Amino acid sequence: MTDSELLATAFEEAKVGLSEGGIPIGAVLVRDGDIIARGHNRRVQNNDPLEHAEINCLRNAGRIGSFRGLTLVSTLMPCYLCAGAAVQFRLTRVIAGESQNFAGARKFMESQGIEVVDLDNRECIDMMARFIRENSELWHEDIGL
Amino acid sequence: MTDSELLATAFEEAKVGLSEGGIPIGAVLVRDGDIIARGHNRRVQNNDPLEHAEINCLRNAGRIGSFRGLTLVSTLMPCYLCAGAAVQFRLTRVIAGESQNFAGARKFMESQGIEVVDLDNRECIDMMARFIRENSELWHEDIGL
Repeated sequence: MTDSELLATAFEEAKVGLSEGGIPIGAVLVRDGDIIARGHNRRVQNNDPLEHAEINCLRNAGRIGSFRGLTLVSTLMPCYLCAGAAVQFRLTRVIAGESQNFAGARKFMESQGIEVVDLDNRECIDMMARFIRENSELWHEDIGL
Repeated sequence: MTDSELLATAFEEAKVGLSEGGIPIGAVLVRDGDIIARGHNRRVQNNDPLEHAEINCLRNAGRIGSFRGLTLVSTLMPCYLCAGAAVQFRLTRVIAGESQNFAGARKFMESQGIEVVDLDNRECIDMMARFIRENSELWHEDIGL
């Protein structure tokens, strides 16, 4: 699958989250071009401040032994929590749908040797911008501000 | 409560984890000297690679609105995943029982303005050293090696 196709699946996950009343951020975990896990932000649904999309996705992968060398795709540039997970579990590549609504921890990931790609995707930008505009308190809680 | 008293409670959590067949790392979250949440590593118990002690502890705190300014205590120096959580949620202080068995992400946390204290506690060192010696595969999986 191409980066754009992978992002499209992460975007589907984000829409699932939105339909559940949650924060619309989705993620997929990729091994050799194939999606092996997917997830979305479930802070509201699970009443759990740690359940960011990337964390939910990695958790859904389960105990696969090693995450080394895998690619993590998220509709939004990962925050420090999720970037920390990517670094600790030795992922090699992170693809973000966009970073206009949230700059995230790109430099930190790159400083740790992770290749970071920002697809600057219009659909991701628009969905998140609208959500933040309409739910600013929830969003600020989500990123710990 | 003093730093040592807080660590003693985290150590109790680690022992609970060990008695459950899990990895003996415990954590507590502190506001104004009082413990507001506690937790321990539950990777084995929950079959969840993300359930490090510090993550479990923060999760147990629930949606408290803001974690800003709180102190996180762990029996072991936090890894990048847990350090990333501390950075993202704006904790100001991290107390580690020890860093001899695992150096963790101390420099990263300090570079982000978190005060890090290493108590170099003998009980924490001995428990973790013994566990790693007897369960090296499980330990390496836990830290993503």
